[in-house]
Amino acid sequence: MSRRTISHEDGAIYEFTPDLEAITTVEPGEELTIETRDSLDGAVQTESDVIESVPDEVNAATGPIAVEGAEPGDVLRVEIEDVRLAEDRGRIITIDGFGLLDGDEEIEAPRTRITPVSQADADGEADGDGEPTITFDDLEVPVEPVIGTIGVAPAAESYATLVPHDHGGNLDTTDVTGGNTVYFPVFQAGAMLAMGDCKAAMADGEMCGTGAEIATEIDVTVDVLDADETAVDLERPLVETDDAWKPIASAETLEAACELANRDAVDLLAAEHGFDDTDAYLFSSLTGGLEISQVVDPLVTVRNAIPKEYLSSPF
Amino acid sequence: MSRRTISHEDGAIYEFTPDLEAITTVEPGEELTIETRDSLDGAVQTESDVIESVPDEVNAATGPIAVEGAEPGDVLRVEIEDVRLAEDRGRIITIDGFGLLDGDEEIEAPRTRITPVSQADADGEADGDGEPTITFDDLEVPVEPVIGTIGVAPAAESYATLVPHDHGGNLDTTDVTGGNTVYFPVFQAGAMLAMGDCKAAMADGEMCGTGAEIATEIDVTVDVLDADETAVDLERPLVETDDAWKPIASAETLEAACELANRDAVDLLAAEHGFDDTDAYLFSSLTGGLEISQVVDPLVTVRNAIPKEYLSSPF
Repeated sequence: MSRRTISHEDGAIYEFTPDLEAITTVEPGEELTIETRDSLDGAVQTESDVIESVPDEVNAATGPIAVEGAEPGDVLRVEIEDVRLAEDRGRIITIDGFGLLDGDEEIEAPRTRITPVSQADADGEADGDGEPTITFDDLEVPVEPVIGTIGVAPAAESYATLVPHDHGGNLDTTDVTGGNTVYFPVFQAGAMLAMGDCKAAMADGEMCGTGAEIATEIDVTVDVLDADETAVDLERPLVETDDAWKPIASAETLEAACELANRDAVDLLAAEHGFDDTDAYLFSSLTGGLEISQVVDPLVTVRNAIPKEYLSSPF
Repeated sequence: MSRRTISHEDGAIYEFTPDLEAITTVEPGEELTIETRDSLDGAVQTESDVIESVPDEVNAATGPIAVEGAEPGDVLRVEIEDVRLAEDRGRIITIDGFGLLDGDEEIEAPRTRITPVSQADADGEADGDGEPTITFDDLEVPVEPVIGTIGVAPAAESYATLVPHDHGGNLDTTDVTGGNTVYFPVFQAGAMLAMGDCKAAMADGEMCGTGAEIATEIDVTVDVLDADETAVDLERPLVETDDAWKPIASAETLEAACELANRDAVDLLAAEHGFDDTDAYLFSSLTGGLEISQVVDPLVTVRNAIPKEYLSSPF
């Protein structure tokens, strides 16, 4: 099969709902290129374009894409082959009422800083001897793209694309990037994958409320894993990096999110090693550990890294 | 000067108070070896030794050590050259009422697991072709020691060695290890350094409430930096790793700790680059970011990594 392109113009959502209608249907194993706009839909092109308050519609997610044969209880596997920048600048902003240091009297909101993409073509590929970077004043930061919002149709509730939860959504997790694979529980027939809200670079935490927001082209291959092929019942997203498996959990507080992510890690370790939950919990406290994804969205997100030395694929 | 050894038997504290009395005085630049007992003072030697509740006295910290010439407003620099294991086993435990998953009905407390040190002499050095490891059942985990409790006499309040705060204390931060350097604000004459509560290995988060608790010998060199030599007023501990500077903050909630650590990162970036606080905040959201130290102590601890490419020494 040749790679199929699905663009923002084909369809995009601002809310993950249980009854999403697909803009297209793809087959398991199909290779896709998904084009996404920046999280602010192009509203910020210069530093005089500021955002006064969080827009009602933000984080447009291209899709939803139905995957043939995906049924509730299955797992949707999304292998992210590459995330390419599709414009020559990113933007990082403060918005009044949003962000970790919101309310600090020394922090000015709204403010916009443009982060030009340099040493690279418009598609984010290096055109010289250097790696692609973005610049902030005279500082260069390597381009390390992040897919901020990615998810599937949820089980029962609806979630704006600003919100992360068990269906994925606004996970803002730096590991959700090219070379890694994300797994989601399937709650609805077809899974209904959608993604957007990419960043050219983002710190763990996304403290000011954004990374360098930018339009992208994302190469992915989707696949469906039958429920009876999995070692655990996946309740939340899970990301696989080169060296670790990381359950991702979102909740009202970081403490509650840590509990969920660690509980998922305990289940994975127990299934792998035949540990009871207590031994799995003790072992989880020896290596890898808790990592912050983002601390600014309406729910906050953490992950629990388990090095691959200690966990084979649960699928 | 030859390296001076200071042992647990010379003195140890269970509380960091403003009026600590030194067990010895050292000169700036002096090389020390500090011997520490495990956090449970040797009470757990086999898996039948369990801890029913958090002891009144836990995390013995060897010291306090007065550093000649250290005055309030100065910065104490503690270069950690090496942390060697001083016994042949660690122990990792659950205690009822303690730990991230405390109250989970599948988690049993108290439980003790012994983690023998293998492929190594009793001093933790590899004696064969492998790196030193600890074992948990048939799983091997590399020895990556952590100094759990390290700090100085606080400004006004007293803190048990189970508690982390601006003076340091029970920071349980994996970066506090051999090869790295920790900086503390000096609140009292002589600074009054003390440390203990080491682990042979620990996950970020220390979810069950401990790592593999173990006695150690720690090589450090202490130094005093005059207040007028520093680019910022240090209010909390700061750790320097090979590739990053990381302010460390402890608070009632992870969210509050994140705010403090990010605020410190903003101050450091603003001082370095001449940014106003808002630009420093935006830049802090592009690279490095928030990391979890521990989520189980009476106050919780996070750090904010700033890659060294973007921050020279503030001292």
